[in-house]
Amino acid sequence: MEKKISSAVIKRLPRYYRYLSELLENGIDRISSQELSHKMNVTASQIRQDFNNFGGFGQQGYGYNVEILRGEIGKILGLDKKYHVIILGAGNLGQALANYTGFARRGFLVSAIFDNDIKKVGQKVGDIIVRDMAALEDYIQENSVDIVALTLPKSKAPEVAGELVKMGVHAFWNFAATDLNLPEDVVVENVHLAESLMRLSYNIVNLPHD
Amino acid sequence: MEKKISSAVIKRLPRYYRYLSELLENGIDRISSQELSHKMNVTASQIRQDFNNFGGFGQQGYGYNVEILRGEIGKILGLDKKYHVIILGAGNLGQALANYTGFARRGFLVSAIFDNDIKKVGQKVGDIIVRDMAALEDYIQENSVDIVALTLPKSKAPEVAGELVKMGVHAFWNFAATDLNLPEDVVVENVHLAESLMRLSYNIVNLPHD
Repeated sequence: MEKKISSAVIKRLPRYYRYLSELLENGIDRISSQELSHKMNVTASQIRQDFNNFGGFGQQGYGYNVEILRGEIGKILGLDKKYHVIILGAGNLGQALANYTGFARRGFLVSAIFDNDIKKVGQKVGDIIVRDMAALEDYIQENSVDIVALTLPKSKAPEVAGELVKMGVHAFWNFAATDLNLPEDVVVENVHLAESLMRLSYNIVNLPHD
Repeated sequence: MEKKISSAVIKRLPRYYRYLSELLENGIDRISSQELSHKMNVTASQIRQDFNNFGGFGQQGYGYNVEILRGEIGKILGLDKKYHVIILGAGNLGQALANYTGFARRGFLVSAIFDNDIKKVGQKVGDIIVRDMAALEDYIQENSVDIVALTLPKSKAPEVAGELVKMGVHAFWNFAATDLNLPEDVVVENVHLAESLMRLSYNIVNLPHD
């Protein structure tokens, strides 16, 4: 079923999931497409079309059951599974990721963090001890690793990622400001903060003035 | 001139800028659309079309002057200006942003960082002293603030952002996992890490297996 859903719809799913989660947190268990539309700043017909892709959970004149809809979207997004995440780089960004409890709540469990700075090795980030990067290969052979989060300098990230692929890693969450150039069967999700900042400055420069 | 460029092209510009910067760092001052195409995994005709939007800097059979092209794209992105950035939240993520030298290199200057945790106030993040959030309004009235980076909990971010808009702030780099719902003349660039992680898990679940 997932294969039929267009990539444009897929891109919107995480945002729907976030909104539906917020509704549940606020004790709202039913919502119409009009209300959701108003909250999310998306047209109601867009929402209905998107939800029809996975069966259309709405009941005319009654609205969506928030918990069921969230569960179905979560399944499509793979959030009904657990993922073991390791983080390479114990700098501020690596520590921020390790400490963010929202990830664990969604099934992303940080099981180890690695750094090659001997001063950081052995220190704790939350409950997790920073390990020596030299122990990385052994760790991957002995443990299940579903996702590697890369918070390494861009000069090192592509080479390290290439070696990790040889060790059997298939998915990367890449914060290094460079592309990894990995085989097509490897999943890479890039978070290029510098590019995000450039979109911001573009919009500042092009902000309509009165 | 910028107004005529489609948003799809605009979205690609930061990536072009990043690649052209890497070429310059590697001492490459001229490149053909074919070579750039190969490096960036975009078709050469796409690249030529995109660059034609701002005058087409190529010289047939000779390629693009990397420095000039990078400069022109930088201007369109507003990177020929300086931006004063303040960071709200001195947690790991706020500290990571404050310490990232790549931003300063591109004209984004972190001038202050604020937190309401009295244990953090007065401490240094790089060269910047963490200030008390209670001093935020005075700071904004006395200093030029072009961008506010929000690394606050999602329960606080929308309210704080709304107050900042009243104080005259027009641009936000939002890391809180929620939308800010600000007036249309305010620029918001969202970095929703949880949504990024959901796109990753979707792609893991839907990875073609052999």
